[in-house]
Amino acid sequence: MKKILFAIAILFATTLVAQQHPNAFANKQEFAFVKDNITKTALLQQSYADLKASVDAWLGKDIDVPVPKDPAGGYTHEKHKANYNLMFHAGLMYNITGDARYALLVKNMFLKYAALVPTLANHPEATSSSPGRIFWQALNDANYLVYAGLAYDLIQPYLTEVERKTISEGAFKPEVDYFTKDLSKWFDLIHNHAVWACAGVGIVGIATDNQDYIDMALYGSSKDKSAGFLAHLNGLFSPDGYYNEGPYYTRYAVLPFYFFANALNHAKPELKIFQYRDQILGKALKGALEQTNLDGAFYSYNDAIKDKTYTSNEVVYAVDIYWQVYGASADLLPIAKVQDRVIMSKGGVEISKKLDDSKSVPAYYPYKSIEFTDGPKGDEGGVAVIRSGKGKNLTSLIYKYSTHGLSHGHYDKLNINLYDNGNEILQDYGAVRFIGIEQKYGGRYLPQTKDYAQQTIAHNTVTVDEKSHFNGKESESQKNHPTKWYSKVDSTNVQVVTAFEDKAYKDVNMQRSVFVIKVPGASKPLILDIFRLLSATEHQYDLPFNYLGYVISTNYKYESYKANLKPLGKKNGYQFMWKEAGARIGKEMSQFTFLNDKRFYTVSSVSGDSAEIFFTVLGANDPDFNLRRDPSYVIRTKGTNKTYVNAIEIHGDYSTINEVASGAYSAVADIKVLQDDAAFTAVEVSYNSKPLLAISVNSPAAGDKTFTYNYNGKAITWKGNYYIQYDNKLLNK
Amino acid sequence: MKKILFAIAILFATTLVAQQHPNAFANKQEFAFVKDNITKTALLQQSYADLKASVDAWLGKDIDVPVPKDPAGGYTHEKHKANYNLMFHAGLMYNITGDARYALLVKNMFLKYAALVPTLANHPEATSSSPGRIFWQALNDANYLVYAGLAYDLIQPYLTEVERKTISEGAFKPEVDYFTKDLSKWFDLIHNHAVWACAGVGIVGIATDNQDYIDMALYGSSKDKSAGFLAHLNGLFSPDGYYNEGPYYTRYAVLPFYFFANALNHAKPELKIFQYRDQILGKALKGALEQTNLDGAFYSYNDAIKDKTYTSNEVVYAVDIYWQVYGASADLLPIAKVQDRVIMSKGGVEISKKLDDSKSVPAYYPYKSIEFTDGPKGDEGGVAVIRSGKGKNLTSLIYKYSTHGLSHGHYDKLNINLYDNGNEILQDYGAVRFIGIEQKYGGRYLPQTKDYAQQTIAHNTVTVDEKSHFNGKESESQKNHPTKWYSKVDSTNVQVVTAFEDKAYKDVNMQRSVFVIKVPGASKPLILDIFRLLSATEHQYDLPFNYLGYVISTNYKYESYKANLKPLGKKNGYQFMWKEAGARIGKEMSQFTFLNDKRFYTVSSVSGDSAEIFFTVLGANDPDFNLRRDPSYVIRTKGTNKTYVNAIEIHGDYSTINEVASGAYSAVADIKVLQDDAAFTAVEVSYNSKPLLAISVNSPAAGDKTFTYNYNGKAITWKGNYYIQYDNKLLNK
Repeated sequence: MKKILFAIAILFATTLVAQQHPNAFANKQEFAFVKDNITKTALLQQSYADLKASVDAWLGKDIDVPVPKDPAGGYTHEKHKANYNLMFHAGLMYNITGDARYALLVKNMFLKYAALVPTLANHPEATSSSPGRIFWQALNDANYLVYAGLAYDLIQPYLTEVERKTISEGAFKPEVDYFTKDLSKWFDLIHNHAVWACAGVGIVGIATDNQDYIDMALYGSSKDKSAGFLAHLNGLFSPDGYYNEGPYYTRYAVLPFYFFANALNHAKPELKIFQYRDQILGKALKGALEQTNLDGAFYSYNDAIKDKTYTSNEVVYAVDIYWQVYGASADLLPIAKVQDRVIMSKGGVEISKKLDDSKSVPAYYPYKSIEFTDGPKGDEGGVAVIRSGKGKNLTSLIYKYSTHGLSHGHYDKLNINLYDNGNEILQDYGAVRFIGIEQKYGGRYLPQTKDYAQQTIAHNTVTVDEKSHFNGKESESQKNHPTKWYSKVDSTNVQVVTAFEDKAYKDVNMQRSVFVIKVPGASKPLILDIFRLLSATEHQYDLPFNYLGYVISTNYKYESYKANLKPLGKKNGYQFMWKEAGARIGKEMSQFTFLNDKRFYTVSSVSGDSAEIFFTVLGANDPDFNLRRDPSYVIRTKGTNKTYVNAIEIHGDYSTINEVASGAYSAVADIKVLQDDAAFTAVEVSYNSKPLLAISVNSPAAGDKTFTYNYNGKAITWKGNYYIQYDNKLLNK
Repeated sequence: MKKILFAIAILFATTLVAQQHPNAFANKQEFAFVKDNITKTALLQQSYADLKASVDAWLGKDIDVPVPKDPAGGYTHEKHKANYNLMFHAGLMYNITGDARYALLVKNMFLKYAALVPTLANHPEATSSSPGRIFWQALNDANYLVYAGLAYDLIQPYLTEVERKTISEGAFKPEVDYFTKDLSKWFDLIHNHAVWACAGVGIVGIATDNQDYIDMALYGSSKDKSAGFLAHLNGLFSPDGYYNEGPYYTRYAVLPFYFFANALNHAKPELKIFQYRDQILGKALKGALEQTNLDGAFYSYNDAIKDKTYTSNEVVYAVDIYWQVYGASADLLPIAKVQDRVIMSKGGVEISKKLDDSKSVPAYYPYKSIEFTDGPKGDEGGVAVIRSGKGKNLTSLIYKYSTHGLSHGHYDKLNINLYDNGNEILQDYGAVRFIGIEQKYGGRYLPQTKDYAQQTIAHNTVTVDEKSHFNGKESESQKNHPTKWYSKVDSTNVQVVTAFEDKAYKDVNMQRSVFVIKVPGASKPLILDIFRLLSATEHQYDLPFNYLGYVISTNYKYESYKANLKPLGKKNGYQFMWKEAGARIGKEMSQFTFLNDKRFYTVSSVSGDSAEIFFTVLGANDPDFNLRRDPSYVIRTKGTNKTYVNAIEIHGDYSTINEVASGAYSAVADIKVLQDDAAFTAVEVSYNSKPLLAISVNSPAAGDKTFTYNYNGKAITWKGNYYIQYDNKLLNK
């Protein structure tokens, strides 16, 4: 039978590259292997049963292929999305079972699409600069091409040559032509939408034996290698796999990258696509997984949606394909276990078997501190994830000094985020969006994404004069990035990153040093955050801590605006923040403790001669209730040069056996700035009744240069950019 | 050895009831059984390892027994709490291992308590009407007596007679005397604090062979049976096990009930305490477990703390003791599995073994609809839990028409709460309290518990003229309860409860009928809520829906107070609610859709000729940030007689396999009130484009009486209190 089908395929082939099919998602040998194992391994069996049930519900039914009308979330949108999924899934079922009813289901749907697609002009709800035809935006049409292309490949042997022609020319060609001709500018962008478009055109090329499509997908619409899949692999990742739109978007883009690469690996193994650029596709997946919280949520840099985790379909596919092409990878097992499903591939089978054989799978990915460079060459700033602790007790401080990150980037230079105890503690708001909810602007990004979430004040970094970095101009922000001065994140006692930003504001330079310090005798790390603002002219500086939790205490009195709330400001995100309370602080240290999930967090701050502090909550000027009612703690100072020194503590434990709380109070009694000038910033923190001395050299990487500082009448000498001692004993070794 | 110790005990016994010890938590035979099984069954082994580790950390150390000074959350409070736990746990370890180091640890601590306790007057932080001595309130001293009493019993054989005397007279007698003499009024209350006090005195009585203590514990300080443990068993539970302070307080009270009953069962088996009052102790535990959410949280009636679940220690003890005394109970297995630990008892061993032997344990307790009566005789109103759906898809509507529930009760007559999809959807705020957090008023109830959370506006029931039920007077509320008119909760299609309240307001009567209807073709139940207000005089009525979720849409325009917030009112809870938006509605139906955890909920309402609607959020007049920033949706009408008809829909699904949303829109197109008078309320809801007719008879239980109503020119005739048809087909069979 196999041989006959193959012979027929050869006989009727009209293009040069006719191959045996299926040959995109998996080939016959691989499907035979899957089939052979279904009853032999638990997770595969369950995943197969779920797939079968989802497809069988539609067997023998006449599937609606409606004329496109609705935006995202609406009927026609969701129906077409369900349809391309169903075609792909039914195609899988056909190859596993050999039951022709599945192939018939797919064929009948394809014939409807072949009739519909050639009649389509731009979608009536198209508001995007890259309008779609089946969907409101071209991105969704690209999704269709990817899944429908895979589905076609899966039933290609079942079709007559006439049917093949009908479908190729009806269901695919108008879309491919539209992308590569009408939308060629969009198709040739280096951007996650274009990755989908290339993958769609390329997979359709492989499925329909069309070398022209494959070439455009690989090298751009003009095939000159200035665009296309390889240009994406070169341009969207740094050498260590950081994706320039951030981990949430890696999650989304990883599917077309892996689907197309997997298809190329079947159809054109000589390309060795998974080895390309020193295995950049492997690094991309691992890089994104490194940037997840214990619950699997991708860190919310840029326009992220917080409830997307590595259990989403895209990552299930990527993990299983990774396992197949790069070999078994034990660190992926905890993720595969939480994903709780595998795909119908050799990798899926192998992961399922490995889970059967593993007596105990660790609860979490083996997270460790990690630095990512940004930019294709790795010379455009980066992101550091500084970690401390193990298991549920993992603390992750993210320090971002990367490029803007294209259209979904935020004005967040030198921002920090904090995750601890499995929770988000100091947040980036992410995107303002109710994905898939038609009533909320068709599930698209809401205006507050740009107006609030992307603005600097929504981040744990400094806003100058109530204006966002680069005055909120994407084109300017896109051109620049901070400079990392020095870092060390592979040390046990003291991990540090210092970066410098001199373009975000015309006449203010910003330098931030973040130390994560394991102090002897303390069970949790102490975060020391030194933020220097340098300017010859007078400015207003706002440093917010966008905390999540309940206000527990402050060490100062504040005024509560308890009977009348007003917004904090008028624009650049400030207009959304209600002022709930405010305080004026002298030169003394201010302390604020909040509670999140039975654990305490205290921010102790000094910022020179005076500060004003605001407790805010979101919701002002938000008539459509688009924003979460999240709080912030804003420290405002005014002056020319100003330095914020913040000690951020994690403290408190709760024993479930004895139901006893401990460590409810801050261990920071005082913070003194001993020196703060062009040479050094020297800070003394009274921590657990003993002095912690931190000295940061205020210049780029000092290498082995020797410095001296006079402390309590004694000269301290050290080499390199920083010096930390506690209780008069050196820590940074 | 056992015999020798026994002989010594007999020899030196100074009271009449000298018995073999241990004989309170468990006896020698039971501990031998536990020891024998530790390596044989997984959960027991793990629980033992955890216990051992928690105790071994203190072995050989000099344990601090500080002079009482701090309120809850402070050092001396938490230390004494840790101490009594440690004494009990070390006593368990002694009996399992026979290692005298554990007994020595306990003895040394007891000797310190024996020296300290006689010196104590009232605690310096005592603000309660029942002040404590070791702790700020006597309740915590009672906790000490319970655990220390058990601990003493566990090491009694190890002690010399002199040591026994020293400890009995030093560590116990002053506390027992204080409770039963100085605080005898408090000791003789029928209240959860007094349950602890009785259990403490009784367990100490058993441990020290003091019949006098046992008698006072059983029958009250004057031993006349007007108070004490048996009076609690009679007075705090309804005949079907409903605890009159609500399930959250059952959780807390269940431990002294079970600890003392378990001790009595060992020392005085002839009492048959677990059989008492038709097994009221068994019913009490099951009754509380029936009132939990899928995540194990007890329903938040009254002053509940929402994060307390059935995994708390109290319930672990109760479940394991239940299993031992009442026999294996399969419905407890899912709970034991989630608890993930067992106690060092015969019941603990047996549950652990049962879990080993069970291939698959259901994910959830087998929840079903259930009605509880309130009051010792079951004639003081009650609480109904109307359920629909299975597993994660369980919907639970709670309708409360019970008594006030003592000092932690709320002014919440005819309140409803809704849980669905594992989440709280229409909430009772619970208590305003940060338990165990010293900075928040020593972890005690915060003032907003009384000022907001207990007030009527914090509940999903009607507030008249901005005054709470019974004008917020506990003494008045305590005397009264609504009357259930009729109910049926064991039906598949239509479940209903109607109750009537005529005392909460002087000249307004309230009648509420709640129907949970399974409409043919719909995947989720429809809740129809008819709330009638009857008065001869003009009033303002506020019906809030204290929803949890995000505002998605309304079918009307509203004004957003987007640049300036003011509170909704001045007192009775209103002063804490910011007015975020408001609308005026004519006689047409208003619709409000919100989103919680990927599921939609729509409240469609009509309320006569006009209504005013407010969107509010908590936080006004809350300078200490004690309140969560939770929203509410308040429908206000004015008039004499007024009827609210609300259709509450659960709708929308999200497929994780296909990532497709469906059912985002309400299926209710209109609600018409066809008749609303002393005879009937007849309502027609256009639901999924077909008419649903609901008729409620506006009088108490009608039995088999026949009624007739003319609908669309056709006479409908039925027997009983209600009639529901959909698409012209009768549903309520």
